[in-house]
Amino acid sequence: MNQQTIETKCVAIIGMGLIGGSLAIRLREKGISSEIIGVDADKDHAAKAIELGLADRMLSLQDAVRLSDVVIFAIPVDSMVHLLPVVLDMAEHQIVVDLGSTKAQLADAVKAHPKRGRYVASHPMWGTEYSGPEAAVSGAFEKKAVILCDLSDSDADAAEWTRQMFGAIGMHLIEMDAVSHDLHAAYVSHISHITSFALANTVLEKEKEDDAIFELASAGFESTVRLAKSNPAMWVPIFRQNRENVLDVLNEHISQLRKFKSCLEKENWEYLAELIEGANKIRRILK
Amino acid sequence: MNQQTIETKCVAIIGMGLIGGSLAIRLREKGISSEIIGVDADKDHAAKAIELGLADRMLSLQDAVRLSDVVIFAIPVDSMVHLLPVVLDMAEHQIVVDLGSTKAQLADAVKAHPKRGRYVASHPMWGTEYSGPEAAVSGAFEKKAVILCDLSDSDADAAEWTRQMFGAIGMHLIEMDAVSHDLHAAYVSHISHITSFALANTVLEKEKEDDAIFELASAGFESTVRLAKSNPAMWVPIFRQNRENVLDVLNEHISQLRKFKSCLEKENWEYLAELIEGANKIRRILK
Repeated sequence: MNQQTIETKCVAIIGMGLIGGSLAIRLREKGISSEIIGVDADKDHAAKAIELGLADRMLSLQDAVRLSDVVIFAIPVDSMVHLLPVVLDMAEHQIVVDLGSTKAQLADAVKAHPKRGRYVASHPMWGTEYSGPEAAVSGAFEKKAVILCDLSDSDADAAEWTRQMFGAIGMHLIEMDAVSHDLHAAYVSHISHITSFALANTVLEKEKEDDAIFELASAGFESTVRLAKSNPAMWVPIFRQNRENVLDVLNEHISQLRKFKSCLEKENWEYLAELIEGANKIRRILK
Repeated sequence: MNQQTIETKCVAIIGMGLIGGSLAIRLREKGISSEIIGVDADKDHAAKAIELGLADRMLSLQDAVRLSDVVIFAIPVDSMVHLLPVVLDMAEHQIVVDLGSTKAQLADAVKAHPKRGRYVASHPMWGTEYSGPEAAVSGAFEKKAVILCDLSDSDADAAEWTRQMFGAIGMHLIEMDAVSHDLHAAYVSHISHITSFALANTVLEKEKEDDAIFELASAGFESTVRLAKSNPAMWVPIFRQNRENVLDVLNEHISQLRKFKSCLEKENWEYLAELIEGANKIRRILK
């Protein structure tokens, strides 16, 4: 699985923002794309994608699908649910890949589609808190995991090319079904965003009476709060589609926080130390 | 306030861990110390501090104070409350600085001390999730804030040298009283650690039934959870000394999280978008 063995293709990317733009850079870096055709409903983003050299040309959705070998979706998950069946209607030989953060509703939306086999469901576990074409960076995705869902529902050639493409850009592949994906993503990605949004709101609330508070922001604060810059247009649809899992994890998280609260209220310092030692076990996983 | 104007001194550092060790490197880099004398109750840490060249020599507390011009405390805040008055008893011309994360109890512990003037209370807003001498790094503290507390209670020469020292290692100085410090630190540092510990425990709890979950950990997850590696020996005393402020902020944080929970339960996506847009205002502060 490296760039030598992968067939170069003309790739259309729908959504030239952070994810789509960063993938465009990466595909070109690795010599995987013969051409990048961009599609973006936002005229400013479309112009910016050309200006920054992310896409070779910007076309309408229909023309982009018609002229490409691979169509990659990098738009918010609510738009994707509507647009993916439309693109599959148009597809003939094309491989259609999505990079969305939720998978179950998308899987449902196309499960009876006659061209379901052309579609490969993926979720590369990479992103930043920024959005738009200017947020695209080189070297993205490297050494991160990508989850491929329900691969047995994809045609063999589509699954194989997509596997090779993610391997060639330096990702390690994990396969699971769409329902499991959404549960896991709630734990290792979606909840982090909620805690970060809530932490930002906690401190911004305080700032109303004390405008000097942020002068003090430490490196630790920046690290836990940076995700709070993330875009609602991307995140509301994710929370909406993964509502039940996110609610379960959020309830568990609030009950974990209540344990810390109870230790402080009862001045139970031994148990507080135990809770922290328990949390330290994360060292085993995060190097 | 740069290294040209600062008088070189023999500096004793009590506690050669992450903070003490990193400061030792920085003082030497900037030519501020004529000699670094280390003090550490942990024999392994003491040996490591010599091996890594953090200290020129390791001495007993008494000898270190006697032979130095400046004594800097970099030990957990509970030990500091006991040891600071002892060191002030021994001090003659020495400047005594602490780098602890809480300030009010320490201020109380020495407020009636006859040599209170020799002491300067500081909190450099820098750290990492690691601990011990091996965790010490070069370039620490650069461009971060340092809070100096109750400076009018310090002798002019002690306050001035400490100001110059922090300026010379690249920090910007903020002055406030010890009680205000503890309130602010609860918001911009202590709560981040609690959310991170609780988030780690939330996901580790899930891992008991699903050991593959961490393969998926995204960059966002790492960023919000990395503080959960932090040492209980440092953090329990901080939470203990700053109990009331941390409880207030934690209650506010839980109520912010409940707003997200309520949006998800009631499928109120408009309000969810508003909460996220509110959190996005953090962009103004964190670049």
